[in-house]
Amino acid sequence: MNAPAHAAQLQPRIDPRPVPQALLDALSQRFGAQLSTAQAVREQHGRDEGSIQAPPPAAVVFAESTQDVQDAMRLAAQHEVPVIAYGAGSSLEGHLLAVQGGISIDVGRMNKVLSIDADDLTVTVQPGITRKALNEAIKDTGLFFPIDPGADASIGGMAATRASGTNAVRYGTMRENVLALEVVTANGDVIRTGTRAKKSSAGYDLTRLMVGSEGTLGIFTEVTVRLYPLPEAVSAAICSFPSIEAAVRTVIQTIQLGVPIARVELIDANSVRMVNAHSRLALREEPMLLMEFHGSAASVQEQAETVQGIASEFGGQAFEWASTPEERTRLWTARHNAYFAAVQSRPGCKAISTDTCVPISRLADCLLASVDEADASGIPYFLVGHVGDGNFHFGYLINPAVPEERERAEQLNHRLVARALSMGGTCTGEHGVGVHKMGFLVDETGAGAVDMMRAIKRALDPKNILNPGKIFAL
Amino acid sequence: MNAPAHAAQLQPRIDPRPVPQALLDALSQRFGAQLSTAQAVREQHGRDEGSIQAPPPAAVVFAESTQDVQDAMRLAAQHEVPVIAYGAGSSLEGHLLAVQGGISIDVGRMNKVLSIDADDLTVTVQPGITRKALNEAIKDTGLFFPIDPGADASIGGMAATRASGTNAVRYGTMRENVLALEVVTANGDVIRTGTRAKKSSAGYDLTRLMVGSEGTLGIFTEVTVRLYPLPEAVSAAICSFPSIEAAVRTVIQTIQLGVPIARVELIDANSVRMVNAHSRLALREEPMLLMEFHGSAASVQEQAETVQGIASEFGGQAFEWASTPEERTRLWTARHNAYFAAVQSRPGCKAISTDTCVPISRLADCLLASVDEADASGIPYFLVGHVGDGNFHFGYLINPAVPEERERAEQLNHRLVARALSMGGTCTGEHGVGVHKMGFLVDETGAGAVDMMRAIKRALDPKNILNPGKIFAL
Repeated sequence: MNAPAHAAQLQPRIDPRPVPQALLDALSQRFGAQLSTAQAVREQHGRDEGSIQAPPPAAVVFAESTQDVQDAMRLAAQHEVPVIAYGAGSSLEGHLLAVQGGISIDVGRMNKVLSIDADDLTVTVQPGITRKALNEAIKDTGLFFPIDPGADASIGGMAATRASGTNAVRYGTMRENVLALEVVTANGDVIRTGTRAKKSSAGYDLTRLMVGSEGTLGIFTEVTVRLYPLPEAVSAAICSFPSIEAAVRTVIQTIQLGVPIARVELIDANSVRMVNAHSRLALREEPMLLMEFHGSAASVQEQAETVQGIASEFGGQAFEWASTPEERTRLWTARHNAYFAAVQSRPGCKAISTDTCVPISRLADCLLASVDEADASGIPYFLVGHVGDGNFHFGYLINPAVPEERERAEQLNHRLVARALSMGGTCTGEHGVGVHKMGFLVDETGAGAVDMMRAIKRALDPKNILNPGKIFAL
Repeated sequence: MNAPAHAAQLQPRIDPRPVPQALLDALSQRFGAQLSTAQAVREQHGRDEGSIQAPPPAAVVFAESTQDVQDAMRLAAQHEVPVIAYGAGSSLEGHLLAVQGGISIDVGRMNKVLSIDADDLTVTVQPGITRKALNEAIKDTGLFFPIDPGADASIGGMAATRASGTNAVRYGTMRENVLALEVVTANGDVIRTGTRAKKSSAGYDLTRLMVGSEGTLGIFTEVTVRLYPLPEAVSAAICSFPSIEAAVRTVIQTIQLGVPIARVELIDANSVRMVNAHSRLALREEPMLLMEFHGSAASVQEQAETVQGIASEFGGQAFEWASTPEERTRLWTARHNAYFAAVQSRPGCKAISTDTCVPISRLADCLLASVDEADASGIPYFLVGHVGDGNFHFGYLINPAVPEERERAEQLNHRLVARALSMGGTCTGEHGVGVHKMGFLVDETGAGAVDMMRAIKRALDPKNILNPGKIFAL
């Protein structure tokens, strides 16, 4: 295993371009009270949930329509000033940082459901609606939107980072579930990509090019996503294992057998301990799988029996079932709070989150070697994972006042990424590149592929004003 | 409903660029017997299964390695001569036509399976292997590759046209099933896109950009695709219906209920008649659904019962089951021969195939109005469809010697596309744009989106040598 040539970016290159007063005046004239230059507002829009920092944007436009986004974009283009789209602020890799200055366009007020097409299992929304609000809005249709990255992220932001999360093992990621987009381009024009048809061979797949482009190719103003019928039966279970390896081997065999499990999350003993403390639970403080099965009553039972059989072969114990919605919510809330529980376990700490994803056959090797390294490092950590997809997250809990801790954590991350890449995996399963993983991206795809990305970026955004300084240096 | 502004391209613009003797000499020197300039070979490589014609390429290189493709590409780039990749020759929209001259690179000899990763449900192949040969090569693994466009197309060609077919309703299209590519770019460099990890957020989705790019952005030299465990149980059934509408309504309800049906094909009475004659069968000459269910024994039974219940509500009769592989093969062979059966039903005819795909709720409206128009036209036709995806094909059987017949057929196609677009659908569900649907593409996506495609093309292929004159004019 060779180390990757490039380290994670600990400190982004801060290179703000001037934001002329003439632009601020023009924005103020056009947007009035929809524009803010207040320090607190700018600072809130200049950070995300990651641990990297940069000075805030010069102003924030609260867009309420596609036209607003177009007008803000055109003014910014005139002055060659960067534009950063802001949804819910829940990204993790520095996506929202104004590393080259510029203005933020907050699309949070564009949060309407535009069209529910229940018969077609699709919905078209504005980008600022969050996934929970979307599910609330469609709850009477018998359908649901399954993508669940944990945070109550905006649909636009989830599309921009190609997010996924706990349900992806069954329902796919934003890559599979975004059908169509309305996009404001770098010169303020509007294009539409895709249709509501389930499949298409109509030219370049601009939808998939835009999904995961992290705001660098356009700003999404409408998003059409797939919905799914609420399963007739849902059953959740937790199962404790004598070791992480036993839990992981259970997952690998489940996936290889083709069991259509809807969720299968690994939670290590550290995380269980933190979650117990945070959520006042009394879960066994051992590695655990949290599973969910969707389908007809018969299918759910069949799936559950298959997995229970596999788990017991690997020493899985204490299968506990949660079939009522309340019990399930309790379990999944605990899972979703793992991050916050962990951060609270070490007051004042920051979590540095890893995001590697490997082919399922290499999951145990990749994960266990990295657990050994994390244990040896002395850095407190927790480990959770969407292991059915081969994706897992270490959260290294560092004291941000001690640079040496950050460095040690990044070295762990570095070795983990190298290991994942050597196994045919990726440095980021779902968080995206942002500013943090720009070096890793080159190691993963090679300079030629990154050059191709740069060529596309230059072609679609010649002034480099769409969230510049993200994904790759330009 | 407005008619689309652009008609289908009946006659492509033929604008051959000079192919200098110096290039042919250099190719001959490099490739020896792997180069052919024989008239028959060139003609075979200058056409596809579609009905549009153009003069053949100037020469054919039979590539046997990535290095061969790179070297041919570099020589072509030096002389600014077009390069057209050739797989199995089964495309339908003029994809392979040398409308701007140039050379063909036949990758048919690059047909090896490079790596079977059964534990990860992936396989990496060279582009020239056909889907049947791939399934033959992996038959001992307990896995299969589900994408089945009917023709025994090459995997590289299927990726290039974003193909799908009968199994897509359950397993997705090439969009969902290509994980990674090795691509030779316009200047002869090699890049890799994607990894073997199931999901990734690592930068622009170059894999999905390349899938469906019809040879205009690069030539694929390796393709990694997903495999699936062979289902424990498979059951196929045919069911006749009193009308096309009854059959379609059965499908719509099946999809809306979320039944994970693996295949559901509509075959109209015309097609059944032609298939009976061609395959010596005695199927009831009524509209028919041909279905297949995959899963555990219990799940297959449950699915079949659900669909049978829906079908009988709509007057479906004569549910006939085929549970042995031989019976199933007989039925699917009949389905796959529908095209040939139809063409043989009118000696000397050419089939002009439509390929619209609409949201499932609009399927009945779109299809029935188009059946009425086809009936009124007097043009013989057949109708088959992957109706679970909202995708269907009329095949208008025209006498190519009678231009007026072609025109009438294209008018039917034109109205069908306009109808599909007005319903939120696409002009091409799986065949691609080629030269035939360039006008329709503009109607579907708008000039702005096509301009974005052009900008990407110019950025990645500044000399416009990769299959020029396809998808859009440049």
